[in-house]
Amino acid sequence: MAKHVVVIGGGVGGIATAYNLRNLMPDLKITLISDRPYFGFTPAFPHLAMGWRKFEDISVPLAPLLPKFNIEFINEKAESIDPDANTVTTQSGKKIEYDYLVIATGPKLVFGAEGQEENSTSICTAEHALETQKKLQELYANPGPVVIGAIPGVSCFGPAYEFALMLHYELKKRGIRYKVPMTFITSEPYLGHFGVGGIGASKRLVEDLFAERNIDWIANVAVKAIEPDKVIYEDLNGNTHEVPAKFTMFMPSFQGPEVVASAGDKVANPANKMVIVNRCFQNPTYKNIFGVGVVTAIPPIEKTPIPTGVPKTGMMIEQMAMAVAHNIVNDIRNNPDKYAPRLSAICIADFGEDAGFFFADPVIPPRERVITKMGKWAHYFKTAFEKYFLWKVRNGNIAPSFEEKVLEIFLKVHPIELCKDCEGAPGSRC
Amino acid sequence: MAKHVVVIGGGVGGIATAYNLRNLMPDLKITLISDRPYFGFTPAFPHLAMGWRKFEDISVPLAPLLPKFNIEFINEKAESIDPDANTVTTQSGKKIEYDYLVIATGPKLVFGAEGQEENSTSICTAEHALETQKKLQELYANPGPVVIGAIPGVSCFGPAYEFALMLHYELKKRGIRYKVPMTFITSEPYLGHFGVGGIGASKRLVEDLFAERNIDWIANVAVKAIEPDKVIYEDLNGNTHEVPAKFTMFMPSFQGPEVVASAGDKVANPANKMVIVNRCFQNPTYKNIFGVGVVTAIPPIEKTPIPTGVPKTGMMIEQMAMAVAHNIVNDIRNNPDKYAPRLSAICIADFGEDAGFFFADPVIPPRERVITKMGKWAHYFKTAFEKYFLWKVRNGNIAPSFEEKVLEIFLKVHPIELCKDCEGAPGSRC
Amino acid sequence: MAKHVVVIGGGVGGIATAYNLRNLMPDLKITLISDRPYFGFTPAFPHLAMGWRKFEDISVPLAPLLPKFNIEFINEKAESIDPDANTVTTQSGKKIEYDYLVIATGPKLVFGAEGQEENSTSICTAEHALETQKKLQELYANPGPVVIGAIPGVSCFGPAYEFALMLHYELKKRGIRYKVPMTFITSEPYLGHFGVGGIGASKRLVEDLFAERNIDWIANVAVKAIEPDKVIYEDLNGNTHEVPAKFTMFMPSFQGPEVVASAGDKVANPANKMVIVNRCFQNPTYKNIFGVGVVTAIPPIEKTPIPTGVPKTGMMIEQMAMAVAHNIVNDIRNNPDKYAPRLSAICIADFGEDAGFFFADPVIPPRERVITKMGKWAHYFKTAFEKYFLWKVRNGNIAPSFEEKVLEIFLKVHPIELCKDCEGAPGSRC
Repeated sequence: MAKHVVVIGGGVGGIATAYNLRNLMPDLKITLISDRPYFGFTPAFPHLAMGWRKFEDISVPLAPLLPKFNIEFINEKAESIDPDANTVTTQSGKKIEYDYLVIATGPKLVFGAEGQEENSTSICTAEHALETQKKLQELYANPGPVVIGAIPGVSCFGPAYEFALMLHYELKKRGIRYKVPMTFITSEPYLGHFGVGGIGASKRLVEDLFAERNIDWIANVAVKAIEPDKVIYEDLNGNTHEVPAKFTMFMPSFQGPEVVASAGDKVANPANKMVIVNRCFQNPTYKNIFGVGVVTAIPPIEKTPIPTGVPKTGMMIEQMAMAVAHNIVNDIRNNPDKYAPRLSAICIADFGEDAGFFFADPVIPPRERVITKMGKWAHYFKTAFEKYFLWKVRNGNIAPSFEEKVLEIFLKVHPIELCKDCEGAPGSRC
Repeated sequence: MAKHVVVIGGGVGGIATAYNLRNLMPDLKITLISDRPYFGFTPAFPHLAMGWRKFEDISVPLAPLLPKFNIEFINEKAESIDPDANTVTTQSGKKIEYDYLVIATGPKLVFGAEGQEENSTSICTAEHALETQKKLQELYANPGPVVIGAIPGVSCFGPAYEFALMLHYELKKRGIRYKVPMTFITSEPYLGHFGVGGIGASKRLVEDLFAERNIDWIANVAVKAIEPDKVIYEDLNGNTHEVPAKFTMFMPSFQGPEVVASAGDKVANPANKMVIVNRCFQNPTYKNIFGVGVVTAIPPIEKTPIPTGVPKTGMMIEQMAMAVAHNIVNDIRNNPDKYAPRLSAICIADFGEDAGFFFADPVIPPRERVITKMGKWAHYFKTAFEKYFLWKVRNGNIAPSFEEKVLEIFLKVHPIELCKDCEGAPGSRC
Repeated sequence: MAKHVVVIGGGVGGIATAYNLRNLMPDLKITLISDRPYFGFTPAFPHLAMGWRKFEDISVPLAPLLPKFNIEFINEKAESIDPDANTVTTQSGKKIEYDYLVIATGPKLVFGAEGQEENSTSICTAEHALETQKKLQELYANPGPVVIGAIPGVSCFGPAYEFALMLHYELKKRGIRYKVPMTFITSEPYLGHFGVGGIGASKRLVEDLFAERNIDWIANVAVKAIEPDKVIYEDLNGNTHEVPAKFTMFMPSFQGPEVVASAGDKVANPANKMVIVNRCFQNPTYKNIFGVGVVTAIPPIEKTPIPTGVPKTGMMIEQMAMAVAHNIVNDIRNNPDKYAPRLSAICIADFGEDAGFFFADPVIPPRERVITKMGKWAHYFKTAFEKYFLWKVRNGNIAPSFEEKVLEIFLKVHPIELCKDCEGAPGSRC
């Protein structure tokens, strides 16, 4: 009887894993559980907030899609996991047995600064982005100071930079940029750290970019509270400061959602409830449980004065999904080969009229290769990639062979690597 | 009977205001009072000091010029203003009544460091520049250390940078640069601050430029004394330091001249005797008194450890003149429309063989647009602009329509803006 | 009877001096003493360590070479100098009289950090480089952390930078760079100081370069000890730190060799046993003794928190040799003209696939000209220069006139300068 893989999560991680499994093993029973009825292209949420995209252009309904690839779709919230009984129970009480479980839920958003949830905005979900779009109209009508950034513990910094630079461009297009003081406040030790110790000379590139686009910045501080008219932060000496603000957007920190915690401390890292995985993104205790995407616990690259985490970008997640799919299929076929994802990343930060192209292979140092470039070409590259990725999702082929070939030729990127053994933190070398 | 506008000052501000008024209202009675018989193109004074320009090439005698445009010229020092009686009294005792008064005197130079006036040089006036030219010959004959910079309270930093980089180029041409240690000492918190919090990535650009041209620099310090053989400065910890110097050039700070003070504390800012104006460059108390140019009191952009002021560059002054002329003419015509200058600026710092092109719109943040470029083209651009500006002065047309069109197309610059009301500091947004 | 010039040293300094003397004075008696039987092209020693060059390709045997240009070659160690008796005694006790003596021995290497000699590697001699090549094979087989840099008192920093960037490239070619954390630890006050206060914007260029090639760096610290598995350094606050290391390469500091010390304190600088010379590289006490190359005592350009010295690069040494040869020949011909070397330098730091081109004229500030560029062209330029220099050595023509012409046209470089008098430290201006 065909083995049954259950995937929790309908984002990049869940879809990529399900598609990889289907391509590797046509007869495998795959069930994907997601509380959201759609796949949303997360990198376009800042554009959605800007009103530069419509929701339907950057999302794909899952119910009509997945059955095309013989993947059962359950549009419910996964409530709990019983790793001993190999079952997942949904919010309606449905109990689903699995041979293998892939947790790709994405994070639980933690709006940790006081008043953040009520007074600020977010672009982490499509729903939040649409709300932010409304709040921006008020700003355009009655311009005032804008403060954007990241609270302590954040790991996903990129969208905050994108949103700030996009908003600069939008305000400039509307001819009111000179009426809107913009300030970027971040927990990173320096601008362009991104939770990964910077990528190439990103510190200087971003400092220059913010100087040229007249965005003031404050790094290495802890945002404590966000009020309707100001942001309050504390510096390393414990001094408190205030920045006036009419509009704010702050990245939340991430935790594992309750469903991961329900699987117990062998699966959920006590510190942040993220899925404990080894370098093959397999749970060291329950070998038939895997983690893919933002919900996996990757240790910080370095201790920073204000806590920061390691971002899990799209390309890293696709590589995790590919490795996990290979490891599950090999396990089913009693093939001892185990794979670890390379965890390299192309990040394109869109600034509206141009963009920044950052490539790090791998993200977790030491790195073989780093590329940092800026230009209008990168803006068009990202727009094209968005359409390409959504085409991949609609067509059930998340890792076309030509894509791998192109990445190998131009960037010498190998998405996954054969590992002697999987013991070791995620990102450690095979 | 035609209204009478009296303009005090024959520099960029005075000439631009008079010409704007004449173009807007052909029958208006305009009188321009200046203690100098000529208009001098101030941005070329560093070149005059270098011996790269002759005085006659960068100045225009006013006596034969202004009558061509039906502007009465009084070549005398304006001694005092009686804002209640609406009169200006000249040094010879002549009392001139006005309906509207435009104070465009330029600044009183304050050589605030001990010994600065006797031991150092200046390029703020054509006379000073010619003296500096002589002092430079001594340096060329007997090379030794050079120290250039700005004392506390300075707002006009650009010419100091230009002069340092031009002198580097001149010494190099003479093959003696390697015998002349050059040091730049400034009250700015960092190199390339320029009194405006920097323009784009000017901090890094200028640091690199000084590194490449082997000009040592010390920022964020207060020059206390300038002696024939050394400069003495104090750092933020109160420690005193000495730098050997055979030749020095230090920018003075600016105050309003006595004539402004004579108008009383409602017109002359008690702190620096500059003309108190609102965002339409109108005196809030005496609505028929306006200020244009360096003599206007624009509040600092930020508090700096050592006091610095906001520069008023050529383009900003031309925009002030255009706004003031429109406001006077509208007042005469009972047209309620009031204008504020955009206060954007193109600054080209000439380095002799190349130059730096800095554009900020507006200068006082937040800024809509910033451009920072370097190259030989910018050097030729500045040379061409000098000839173009002098052509404008000679031809009585300070704001040709094609110029506005070009600025609008290429830099999206609008020199003046309609304002709901004029209440608010100069540089505040309409 | 022809005068007799004895040159101690068969490196760039000794060969360049002997060849210059021969070209200036065909009948002069020249004897060159060297403990090494070959001339080795030192700038290629890092390439030798990488295995990118064979020893025979970058060295020239002296015994068959020098007689071709009527230069007697004694392949022995010079043991002592008697400056009063004008004699040099070799290790075998041979006593050689001279009319003029040129000390071009190169330095004695001082591996000053505890355990440096046993546990680390060096690329300062061909022998050391070949040993380093072997140690690298162990690293490739079993990758681990690499630490490279410079201990306190070092003056020759360039090769450490080259070696680090070359090793990055080599590891990348082998696809194991991402398994090798690389750290650069230096006594320089900042990265890219090079012992000369930086060259142009070298600080930022090298910081960006190390960021892009993911080489962590620590500057302004004193390496205290190098153990088989770690490097121990002390920061300016006296705190000790450890960096894990599987492979290390640290530049030693330089002293004058014993033979210089044997000439007494009027010839050997008590502090570092280097040859005391004036600006014409003549010993102020014994006017018939000259110094050329690394063994000459050039005072540091600035006091740095951790001691650093001034590097003597290839071009500087060739200029010293030219000046000294002219001064000796003029002395013989009772021609009062005295020459000082300009001490300008082209340094090309090879990174394997590209390189950094640094030009400073002169090296010791103030500088007339500075050029800093990076690119693949610079890598090919260095490779071509290596072949060209070895061709010069093999053909006895160290300063072809076309070379001088090319340098003069493109870089406006004059290798030597007429001096009114020679009193003054080396590098001081004529």
